[in-house]
Amino acid sequence: MSSEFGKLLRVSVFGQSHGDAVGVLVDGFPAGEAVDLPALQAFLNRRRPGKDPLSTPRQERDEPRFLSGLVGGVTCGAPLCAVMENTGQYSGDYAVLADTPRPGHADYTARVKWGACADLRGGGHSSGRLTAPLCVAGGIALQILARRGIFVGAHLASVGAEQDTAFPLLPDAALFAAVAAKDFPVLSDEAGARMRAAIAHTREEGDSLGGIIECAAVGLPAGLGSPMFGGVENRLAAALFGIPAVKGVEFGAGFAAARSCGSENNDAFTIRDGAIVTKTNHAGGSLGGIATGMPVVLRVAVKPTPSIAKPQQTVSLSTREDTELRIRGRHDPCIAHRAVPVVEAITALVVLDLLLEQYGTDLKSWKLEGNGHGIIGDPGKD
Amino acid sequence: MSSEFGKLLRVSVFGQSHGDAVGVLVDGFPAGEAVDLPALQAFLNRRRPGKDPLSTPRQERDEPRFLSGLVGGVTCGAPLCAVMENTGQYSGDYAVLADTPRPGHADYTARVKWGACADLRGGGHSSGRLTAPLCVAGGIALQILARRGIFVGAHLASVGAEQDTAFPLLPDAALFAAVAAKDFPVLSDEAGARMRAAIAHTREEGDSLGGIIECAAVGLPAGLGSPMFGGVENRLAAALFGIPAVKGVEFGAGFAAARSCGSENNDAFTIRDGAIVTKTNHAGGSLGGIATGMPVVLRVAVKPTPSIAKPQQTVSLSTREDTELRIRGRHDPCIAHRAVPVVEAITALVVLDLLLEQYGTDLKSWKLEGNGHGIIGDPGKD
Amino acid sequence: MSSEFGKLLRVSVFGQSHGDAVGVLVDGFPAGEAVDLPALQAFLNRRRPGKDPLSTPRQERDEPRFLSGLVGGVTCGAPLCAVMENTGQYSGDYAVLADTPRPGHADYTARVKWGACADLRGGGHSSGRLTAPLCVAGGIALQILARRGIFVGAHLASVGAEQDTAFPLLPDAALFAAVAAKDFPVLSDEAGARMRAAIAHTREEGDSLGGIIECAAVGLPAGLGSPMFGGVENRLAAALFGIPAVKGVEFGAGFAAARSCGSENNDAFTIRDGAIVTKTNHAGGSLGGIATGMPVVLRVAVKPTPSIAKPQQTVSLSTREDTELRIRGRHDPCIAHRAVPVVEAITALVVLDLLLEQYGTDLKSWKLEGNGHGIIGDPGKD
Amino acid sequence: MSSEFGKLLRVSVFGQSHGDAVGVLVDGFPAGEAVDLPALQAFLNRRRPGKDPLSTPRQERDEPRFLSGLVGGVTCGAPLCAVMENTGQYSGDYAVLADTPRPGHADYTARVKWGACADLRGGGHSSGRLTAPLCVAGGIALQILARRGIFVGAHLASVGAEQDTAFPLLPDAALFAAVAAKDFPVLSDEAGARMRAAIAHTREEGDSLGGIIECAAVGLPAGLGSPMFGGVENRLAAALFGIPAVKGVEFGAGFAAARSCGSENNDAFTIRDGAIVTKTNHAGGSLGGIATGMPVVLRVAVKPTPSIAKPQQTVSLSTREDTELRIRGRHDPCIAHRAVPVVEAITALVVLDLLLEQYGTDLKSWKLEGNGHGIIGDPGKD
Repeated sequence: MSSEFGKLLRVSVFGQSHGDAVGVLVDGFPAGEAVDLPALQAFLNRRRPGKDPLSTPRQERDEPRFLSGLVGGVTCGAPLCAVMENTGQYSGDYAVLADTPRPGHADYTARVKWGACADLRGGGHSSGRLTAPLCVAGGIALQILARRGIFVGAHLASVGAEQDTAFPLLPDAALFAAVAAKDFPVLSDEAGARMRAAIAHTREEGDSLGGIIECAAVGLPAGLGSPMFGGVENRLAAALFGIPAVKGVEFGAGFAAARSCGSENNDAFTIRDGAIVTKTNHAGGSLGGIATGMPVVLRVAVKPTPSIAKPQQTVSLSTREDTELRIRGRHDPCIAHRAVPVVEAITALVVLDLLLEQYGTDLKSWKLEGNGHGIIGDPGKD
Repeated sequence: MSSEFGKLLRVSVFGQSHGDAVGVLVDGFPAGEAVDLPALQAFLNRRRPGKDPLSTPRQERDEPRFLSGLVGGVTCGAPLCAVMENTGQYSGDYAVLADTPRPGHADYTARVKWGACADLRGGGHSSGRLTAPLCVAGGIALQILARRGIFVGAHLASVGAEQDTAFPLLPDAALFAAVAAKDFPVLSDEAGARMRAAIAHTREEGDSLGGIIECAAVGLPAGLGSPMFGGVENRLAAALFGIPAVKGVEFGAGFAAARSCGSENNDAFTIRDGAIVTKTNHAGGSLGGIATGMPVVLRVAVKPTPSIAKPQQTVSLSTREDTELRIRGRHDPCIAHRAVPVVEAITALVVLDLLLEQYGTDLKSWKLEGNGHGIIGDPGKD
Repeated sequence: MSSEFGKLLRVSVFGQSHGDAVGVLVDGFPAGEAVDLPALQAFLNRRRPGKDPLSTPRQERDEPRFLSGLVGGVTCGAPLCAVMENTGQYSGDYAVLADTPRPGHADYTARVKWGACADLRGGGHSSGRLTAPLCVAGGIALQILARRGIFVGAHLASVGAEQDTAFPLLPDAALFAAVAAKDFPVLSDEAGARMRAAIAHTREEGDSLGGIIECAAVGLPAGLGSPMFGGVENRLAAALFGIPAVKGVEFGAGFAAARSCGSENNDAFTIRDGAIVTKTNHAGGSLGGIATGMPVVLRVAVKPTPSIAKPQQTVSLSTREDTELRIRGRHDPCIAHRAVPVVEAITALVVLDLLLEQYGTDLKSWKLEGNGHGIIGDPGKD
Repeated sequence: MSSEFGKLLRVSVFGQSHGDAVGVLVDGFPAGEAVDLPALQAFLNRRRPGKDPLSTPRQERDEPRFLSGLVGGVTCGAPLCAVMENTGQYSGDYAVLADTPRPGHADYTARVKWGACADLRGGGHSSGRLTAPLCVAGGIALQILARRGIFVGAHLASVGAEQDTAFPLLPDAALFAAVAAKDFPVLSDEAGARMRAAIAHTREEGDSLGGIIECAAVGLPAGLGSPMFGGVENRLAAALFGIPAVKGVEFGAGFAAARSCGSENNDAFTIRDGAIVTKTNHAGGSLGGIATGMPVVLRVAVKPTPSIAKPQQTVSLSTREDTELRIRGRHDPCIAHRAVPVVEAITALVVLDLLLEQYGTDLKSWKLEGNGHGIIGDPGKD
């Protein structure tokens, strides 16, 4: 009952995988922002299934129709609603799945929560399909941020045991664009090749793999955020856990920090080009929930796709006995690479929300002068 | 500006480390709940500093005074406010720190955010001191939950490289009570001894260590929570990142799931004692944001205490030059063990909030019959 | 930026008068509720324009398409989105109006708020057209409530100087149904005839009239609501002021109470049929923000339609000079009678939200046994 | 369970009339705002009881103690908590009242809601005593606003049948200050004398009187607020209904607009001193929920004090029989005049919250240049 997030930028998603349409409603986009529709579509295509042999062959064009909020391609201040009709869905397996919940899926919990009326077809409202409209909202947020010198980018940090290199200390817009332009969103193409081979291998075995996504947001002014429960980390984490299959979120050194000592983990302050920065960024750009001005860096753990070809044990809800389940059809053997733009979308939406809170929903009052390196804000000048 | 969390159970904390008092306001505790004050004080004492050689010697009695919401030791339905006067603080080092922000602390970000008026003494509002009133709120929530067969417990899973054993598949109230009764909150006392030695060693070196806390909540009815952004994981993560020094949160297998394959990570459903359960719990008790009825299991990464005796590099805000900082006084060489009850407190508050949303703020309508094993809810009977 | 309301039942509307579509997103309808679509359409028709000579001739069929949340006519627990395509709009007058804001309309304020990108055509997002999707949401809420013995009904209490009789002390579902079945929603048809004559007269003069709507909700359990800022009155008022043209909201005796003395205004408690009731209901069913169990009775002031044929003075935004405005086209000479079902819709949504908070979003736990008279709840039995 | 309001400026009140203390927690006051404590105390004294023969003789000094958020008299950005110890309460009548609820009070509804544990002494959490801490928060907000050219003032528009004159079209800070300096908050001292006589008379009769408060906020920039449910009127109304005894809220012409025609009620736009203003202000400074730049003018209906000396009929909860109630002790024969600063406080808090949303919580980015006449904002210049 809370398919929504955001404080001043309210983002709500709706739709079920095999319903008429999925969509997103955003209440709070500033007025007067032009939406570059081809660029938005290019962003959506990064998430779209069916484009390569590593993904589900379900074909969807994922083209949003804007019902409101956009006049002549420019936001008008009223809530923006975009819908994507569902096509290509096939609900044939539904009857079986309704009685034998798929391990690792939300079939069972949705069934308990909503009873026999739950729409379980294709994962219903819990389907990864819902991330398509999220990317519509996030893609617009990315454009609004970029105009103000704030950039968000992500890459696939690992698949199974195969690891990409990590972002450098100061990733920038050019690096993000380079990754976004690739078929497979990695920094090291060599690592990417190993990951793709691992995915191809697991598919042949009728199995699936998880992965980790690293995301960075640069250009955030120091001082953004709040202490305690409304900070940069709290709000990003709350939203990121809304992406299906996410089971962990960490900032900066994250869990590795827990295995290190303070003299290693503390980021020394220094002056660079007249600005206060840190020499390292184990904090991931956030201290006490408030942005330091260094890149906000986070990592998201995506579990292996639960739909696998191998037979699995489950129960029959009607007979209350153990039974074996064989999931038919072709499924993504890994969804982590397709989730990369989704993580960017969510991150952009949360960052824009934080900025609206700090600088106002009336963007004429904003005085941001981003440099794309995330070094803004200066306590010596206030 | 958001030192608060919760939907129907609204928890707000206030106070600065060296101000008059810290406190908590809880709007939404159900009426008619007796508070066992000695049990609450015992819970608070688990967090209290100065009780052993591994902690800061700052002496505080941490005894709450209830200004409202409690009549004759029983909640009356009105908002509950508890305050703890600050004693024992010493702000002598303040002037230096205001000009030379401590690496890894929120001094710098608070200074940028609030300007010269920020209260940085002892960490101000970002101090770990604020977790004391959080434990007052959480300790009451733990009592309310326990009456309904829902139990929350945590242990220190690791300090630096030293690891405790993990919770069993079905931890129970007795196990939680056993850990809570220990001076050092671990399952394996042998592991605990190694951890303590590691902490003592790092203190001698003028350094500090991080750690990981594992927490479990058992007895949650299946079906609790929401899809997408209002689910079990979203709300727990958002609140847990409010604990100072937390840099990562994962559920179930968490980041390890990202390195595994689906056939390993999926939890097979089966029937046990007539109830639907899973054989493993890599999902950490949550699928699609909704409770499965298995224990909710989460892990929290706590970074090493940033205050260390070793000299560190920072900048002078006034001269805008690099400078060396030496932090005087004795500080906790590790705060992870003291954060164990704080994680329990936050988890209990979020779980109670989820229950209020599901079953109503009018507890007379609740029909929970917890068995302490977290196996409630049955889709076959609705 | 807040075209939404509700705590657990989140209602968001979107669309502009001359955009592609208007719609509503409801996150929080309980699962398993059948929607009687013909009954819903009959409810929507009560608001629809173009059905009699007293309304604008704009023809719209106002038939919602459900994009999500409804499977086989039954709510499935996922967010419900309904859209109504806009047809029949004609934006010819737009260029003139954009420069010369209409007195009493939101043209000017929308223009200031959102700048030149604001969609002012036909009132944009501030148009009464947005009440159509609100009635979709409210119409479903009315059906959910009715199944639990809770009924909401309204009538046109006055138009200009012409007054209808007031609701009796205990209005019931039959009375509400009788009013809803009328072409003109009044209790006294004689008063209705006078009102219609007044409206016809004002239309001939190129003018418009305001009116007052009285609404009652019966069957609410005593104890519903909250003290201070989250109570029955706060939440109803906040939502009712979202209806375009509403300028006042009062409960029970309302402003008349301010002119009376305590011995008149206090409602004496008494026992009737074994239940505790009040002899009068000047409190309008709410004391301290909490329902008494007597009918919640409220009155809403609707200002005269600002679009009138008479020439009016305004300014030219481009020349910054005074100018005369003549609004062409036919407009509703009174919208108060069409707002009657909108007030019912809003009231039903708020009441359902309050019930979800009190008794839980899991309706299986509800124990309401409504009697249609609003007399539930008994402090002597708890 | 919702003794709080506000979006970015979160205001929460706590305490019961006869508990240890009442207080307020404000999360969101901007940092760096000096609080003029003597001016704040003078504001609080306007609400304080026991200062004249028309009020309850309960003596309270109403001096707040600031537990947090204020360092050296300046806000530090952290949540501000102020408490006022309760003194002078006498709970002797409690046992009788618990069984025989007072007509017009929240005794009955609180008893139903919270059961036997409800704190009914002196009205408990529903007591007018809670408005004291609200005035602490509001008094600070008034100071913050005044520095930016925004002023809020109110007067007692009527008591029973006696009426004060109305605010002029453009009330200003000087007028507000003049009213605030009076013992009895009216514009016309002659009217004030009649009101006081009416109150004295009703007290002699053992009865009480209601009243109406008119409040204006000037200096609000045009464009402030939101359409539909988050607008100026929605948010003010929601908060104003949190003041005990308020039964109606109207803006501008309010209910009188419902009795007028469009040609009278529409406010013609015109140019004055180069700015766009309206010749009249029947809209009360808000069109479509968004500020016009003219004064926001609202009226609040306060019911007669329910505690009267005359015998009243009620029921015994234990015997479930009708019985007669005689309330002993001296009570305010009218509370409307004491509620005048409370209405100002609430209005100021909501206006500040709206400004924070529009211009940001980082006040350095604000560009307000108030002129005290409420004429700001110009669509021709954007």
